[in-house]
Amino acid sequence: MIDDRHAHAFVPYPDPPDAPVAHAEHGPLAGLSFAAKDLFDVAGYPTGGGNPIVLALSGIKTRTAPTVQRLLDAGARLVGKTITDELAFSMNGQNAHFGAPVNGAAPNRISGGSSSGSASAVSNGLCDFALGTDTGGSVRAPASHCGLYGLRPTHGRISLQGALDLSPSFDTCGWFTRDAASFARVADVLLGADAVPAPTRLLWPADLWAQLAPAAEASAHAAAGRVQAVLGRAAPMNLVLDSFDAMYWHFRYLQGREAWLTDGPLIERYAPPLGPGVAERFAFSRGVTDEQVAEATAFRERFTAHLDALLGPDGVLLLPTMPDIAPLKTEPESALEDYRNRAIRLLCASGLAGLPQLSLPIAGRDNVPMGLSLLGPRGSDRALVAMAEQLATAGVGR
Amino acid sequence: MIDDRHAHAFVPYPDPPDAPVAHAEHGPLAGLSFAAKDLFDVAGYPTGGGNPIVLALSGIKTRTAPTVQRLLDAGARLVGKTITDELAFSMNGQNAHFGAPVNGAAPNRISGGSSSGSASAVSNGLCDFALGTDTGGSVRAPASHCGLYGLRPTHGRISLQGALDLSPSFDTCGWFTRDAASFARVADVLLGADAVPAPTRLLWPADLWAQLAPAAEASAHAAAGRVQAVLGRAAPMNLVLDSFDAMYWHFRYLQGREAWLTDGPLIERYAPPLGPGVAERFAFSRGVTDEQVAEATAFRERFTAHLDALLGPDGVLLLPTMPDIAPLKTEPESALEDYRNRAIRLLCASGLAGLPQLSLPIAGRDNVPMGLSLLGPRGSDRALVAMAEQLATAGVGR
Repeated sequence: MIDDRHAHAFVPYPDPPDAPVAHAEHGPLAGLSFAAKDLFDVAGYPTGGGNPIVLALSGIKTRTAPTVQRLLDAGARLVGKTITDELAFSMNGQNAHFGAPVNGAAPNRISGGSSSGSASAVSNGLCDFALGTDTGGSVRAPASHCGLYGLRPTHGRISLQGALDLSPSFDTCGWFTRDAASFARVADVLLGADAVPAPTRLLWPADLWAQLAPAAEASAHAAAGRVQAVLGRAAPMNLVLDSFDAMYWHFRYLQGREAWLTDGPLIERYAPPLGPGVAERFAFSRGVTDEQVAEATAFRERFTAHLDALLGPDGVLLLPTMPDIAPLKTEPESALEDYRNRAIRLLCASGLAGLPQLSLPIAGRDNVPMGLSLLGPRGSDRALVAMAEQLATAGVGR
Repeated sequence: MIDDRHAHAFVPYPDPPDAPVAHAEHGPLAGLSFAAKDLFDVAGYPTGGGNPIVLALSGIKTRTAPTVQRLLDAGARLVGKTITDELAFSMNGQNAHFGAPVNGAAPNRISGGSSSGSASAVSNGLCDFALGTDTGGSVRAPASHCGLYGLRPTHGRISLQGALDLSPSFDTCGWFTRDAASFARVADVLLGADAVPAPTRLLWPADLWAQLAPAAEASAHAAAGRVQAVLGRAAPMNLVLDSFDAMYWHFRYLQGREAWLTDGPLIERYAPPLGPGVAERFAFSRGVTDEQVAEATAFRERFTAHLDALLGPDGVLLLPTMPDIAPLKTEPESALEDYRNRAIRLLCASGLAGLPQLSLPIAGRDNVPMGLSLLGPRGSDRALVAMAEQLATAGVGR
């Protein structure tokens, strides 16, 4: 049994569980333990999605999500299901019903979310890797905050069957590890080989770098320098199309509309009390108009073409994952909301364009970690992981 | 299937449920439908106790609580499990995780709790009767607010096996109906016959009557007049021992200590986010000292002897169940807390002494119902129900 007393990363279940989850004895992941965010179905367990009504309605699942099953078949051992932010619609890691998983790298700071429990479990050493999902930053933000490797893969590359949706055209399945070598082992199973050539040319999106909090600049730039010493000089360019506000709002309209299509019926039917921030975001989502969706859809097409063209077949963006280290837990909801809105300006590019982004735990300040990201062309996921391995071998990362 | 869209009384479960609950085809309760507060185990369902962590930990129960089984065996049909206030430690009917069941008699007002969903289900006509529990008022308060009959039985008379505890030396199993005749049918099954003679002599605890809100006095006194026209004149007396404050605090110390013994381990282990008011009450409970418990225990013995002597074998108190009609839902938490603390002054007598108290829906103002209570000697439960039937037959009540 996992001792979760310190981390509060896991959704508790009856001990012993009704159905211990079987895994292959041998395989590429033999010896590794893992956890799955409580959006993924696991036979013998309910799926709660961070909301008590969803948990009550779930019943005991009889089928395991294919991606979880793939990991079990590869020899990995499932140790539990982790707390998610409510309905995965938050970036803070504070669930009003199930609690706040502890950031293993900075216990007095938020873990980030929505894959909060997964990042907590790995950063506290309770398992070797953990599955999360990333719609608008839900793997990348907690990876950055908890000092972990975390991938948002190319949209659609890893199956999310048997997992609760948030905004399907943005939803992706990622995972966390503490080190690059373990990350690559899981990548071999979940990604296999890329079908596109590995990108080679680093790019420096100056407009995104300008979004860093002033206090974080020195460390992030120093870490970026170490990356360039290994991978080559990053060529400056600008990424933003039209304006940051255009990107931000079009992202939010599309994510919101899809989130309302997913969860609106539940919310209208059961009127579940939603936690702070989550309730407001669903209220916003409900109000998104067809005109806003049409405009945002057109923008998304333009932006995707724009970013594809900027990267070409061989470009990789080097960028800060988040604007700063994790905020203190004691920050008021309004300050966290402001931080979240600034973070979306950094996070929304890969989501809008469906491109892979890997966050590496290689920066930080005041003994608190912070991630830099590699964002590559569609389908270059495994190559990004290989870059992380190369960097770790060279002493940049673990 | 029950249409719960308006009432939000039930904890939702997968439809169809994993295990529909069987009941006898014939029996004294054949034709009646009922619901059970989500503190009672029902085979095939989890038991949530109004808290998401308890729900997650529950697993699917394999045994049905004996009292629920007794009703099924008597032919009653279970239609679902109802929302309870969190860990049954509230009197408002507002669960921060599962929502606020709607008061069928006054939808813009609180239902009262903690047996909120049960009172909601019956007052909205979704079933004929519903099981609740009453520790400090959790049947009587919602009965009064929702215009229902509701009994707090003699402590220990109806089994609470297979139900979550709050404060065992106060916890009792009661139920709600809309009319006296149905109430008596359930009483025949759950109470059987009394082993003590029926009380006959009405008493008027003047000091409790003085606790009424001024706005409620006219209606409550008029209803009390109608009761006396049927059952005879109530003789004035005073009930309070030492002071209202003594009764209030000794009750809270004892209830709090037992509640902490029950739920403290869960709260310390999982740090579940508790809803407003509930968190504060558990914090209070945790701080209750051994000295306070010792003093309160001694007081409780004195008070029990005092009230037993006041009633004798044949006395029945006629008293207001609550200080007023149900507060508006829009009242701030602080106003509800103040109302709760005033209500405890009326409610704590039967809990401290372990005596039965039946609330009758026979008063009210502004088209909102309010209950008057009959509080009798230990073991006189069935006789109190007979009085309610007699009153209804005479046109006082339904």
